[in-house]
Amino acid sequence: MHDLEARLTQLGGLLDGWLREAVAGPVSEPAARFGAMLEYHLGWRGPDLQPLERPAPAGKRLRPALALLVCEAACGAIEPARDAAVAVELIHNFSLVHDDIQDHSALRRHRPTLWSLWGMPQGINAGDALFALAQITLLRAGTALAAQQTAELNRTALLLAEGQFLDIALQQGDTPATLEAYETMIARKTGVLFACACRLGAMAAEAPSAAQDAYAAYGMALGLAFQEQDDLLGIWGAAAETGKPQAADIVERKRGLPAAIALGQADAPAWLHEAYAGTDGSMPPELVERVIGHYDRLGLRGQIERRVEARYRQALDCLEAAQPRQPSAAYLAAICESLVARRT
Amino acid sequence: MHDLEARLTQLGGLLDGWLREAVAGPVSEPAARFGAMLEYHLGWRGPDLQPLERPAPAGKRLRPALALLVCEAACGAIEPARDAAVAVELIHNFSLVHDDIQDHSALRRHRPTLWSLWGMPQGINAGDALFALAQITLLRAGTALAAQQTAELNRTALLLAEGQFLDIALQQGDTPATLEAYETMIARKTGVLFACACRLGAMAAEAPSAAQDAYAAYGMALGLAFQEQDDLLGIWGAAAETGKPQAADIVERKRGLPAAIALGQADAPAWLHEAYAGTDGSMPPELVERVIGHYDRLGLRGQIERRVEARYRQALDCLEAAQPRQPSAAYLAAICESLVARRT
Repeated sequence: MHDLEARLTQLGGLLDGWLREAVAGPVSEPAARFGAMLEYHLGWRGPDLQPLERPAPAGKRLRPALALLVCEAACGAIEPARDAAVAVELIHNFSLVHDDIQDHSALRRHRPTLWSLWGMPQGINAGDALFALAQITLLRAGTALAAQQTAELNRTALLLAEGQFLDIALQQGDTPATLEAYETMIARKTGVLFACACRLGAMAAEAPSAAQDAYAAYGMALGLAFQEQDDLLGIWGAAAETGKPQAADIVERKRGLPAAIALGQADAPAWLHEAYAGTDGSMPPELVERVIGHYDRLGLRGQIERRVEARYRQALDCLEAAQPRQPSAAYLAAICESLVARRT
Repeated sequence: MHDLEARLTQLGGLLDGWLREAVAGPVSEPAARFGAMLEYHLGWRGPDLQPLERPAPAGKRLRPALALLVCEAACGAIEPARDAAVAVELIHNFSLVHDDIQDHSALRRHRPTLWSLWGMPQGINAGDALFALAQITLLRAGTALAAQQTAELNRTALLLAEGQFLDIALQQGDTPATLEAYETMIARKTGVLFACACRLGAMAAEAPSAAQDAYAAYGMALGLAFQEQDDLLGIWGAAAETGKPQAADIVERKRGLPAAIALGQADAPAWLHEAYAGTDGSMPPELVERVIGHYDRLGLRGQIERRVEARYRQALDCLEAAQPRQPSAAYLAAICESLVARRT
């Protein structure tokens, strides 16, 4: 696990340099201030748009690391997946910038969100620009392979938009919360981009199509495990470690996995439906306690832990089927382990 | 001119069928309602999301027609540019959906805007999906040519976002209104997509690179003429014909071409700056009169008419340099003429 941390840090450093090149290059001079807003979001500039000496934390950059490690596992080198890794990270950030507007989020990674500093219109614009930059990067080679990778990236972007549509419908109560609705949504909102990162890495390595499918399936299982674990921590994560209030997802009436399972049961009590139907701010503490008590009686925590564990084993099976080389194979397996074991 | 109308109607019919295929195909079943929202924006469904027997007016579809006609002018057939034409129209619509949110516009082509019916979050999503669909369409062939065309499309999309950024900065007064600032903005906001449509058509025809450049320059000059004529009509267009109030752009304090010229002059009067600086709703009628009087004394209308005329001649020169075949060449020339002559 120590090795994995070191490898991810190393890949993150490489990626940071490539990302800077991909963003700074194409933006034209009259819109330099606009380019600086993109760099603010990516952690390289402060709210005054001046360069930061120490970049702000920019997330784990797990998706691009997957593209690079899968490529290495398939062909022995990370370089062929350089543009794919950058593109995946830019697509991820495009979706974050737009999500923050849609969710009206004021903070992202402990910093003011882009739209909250420069307004909704520029926020929409900035997301659009990151989307275009992702494609410009991936199409740099101008080859048939680049065309096929970019088509895959866009099928993924369409599914991300669908996932966001389904999530909004679920959170607004337009779609009843059920396990099936949750799974359909989360596969698009989280699973597909993990799967895409892995597939693009395998495509860059010119791996056989069966191996591409196996790596993509590994990514999908990993993405789903990641999200389900996230939903578990949103209720049972130790507040001190997640930095969020205890049972934050219940307080905010988020229809994540626990709520989807509980509300989707035929005999779900009316009071539980009512608790989630409220729109008047946070759920009152006594009601939060009652919901947790109900979830405990249903044994939801253990049930979700077993689901995550099963996805983890599934991811490892898919990984094995892809016949990855060492040492990359060990890192890809360690990523599974680290996600399942995480507490924040 | 009668011929041009007939040809554009014919191309519009073809395009409509191709567009329907490009949009309906990729959206997955659980997000069918989301796909229907996209089809509402494109004029094929009503606000109840049911299919319309008679599609709503969907604009002139000039950009895809340019892609098809340029391709035909360069190689004798429109078919090679089919995917490019659809992609350009989808990119145009992606930018319209996001623009409507950014401008808080309630109506587009006399119908409620997408975001005004289903909310800002779904509006952002819908634009993102149209962006992805444009790329999926253009990348269908999976060839190196498709990769190069899609790279061009994305460089254009980035410039569109820059243009939108510059426009917001200009309208908010963050950037002083000058002719130079206006030109920089409008080249990105309008010119580049016309140029891109023409270049993609020429690329599809595998025209030599000098011809591609000439067609793109024709498109740029045409796009600029189109926008400048639009700005002229926004003040001196007959209200009965444009469907807008007289001098609508002054009433709304829009910093279009006339305002950019007048405000950018070193001796622009302080009262004029103040008239445009106001943010308290519409400009009062007596002030509007005073502004028009000032513009008349400056001879702005004639000045802009001469600019548009010069762009028109420039577009025709570029077209000639591309050595287009007949009859497509005549249609491309007639498009110039029709734009300059238009009164709405």
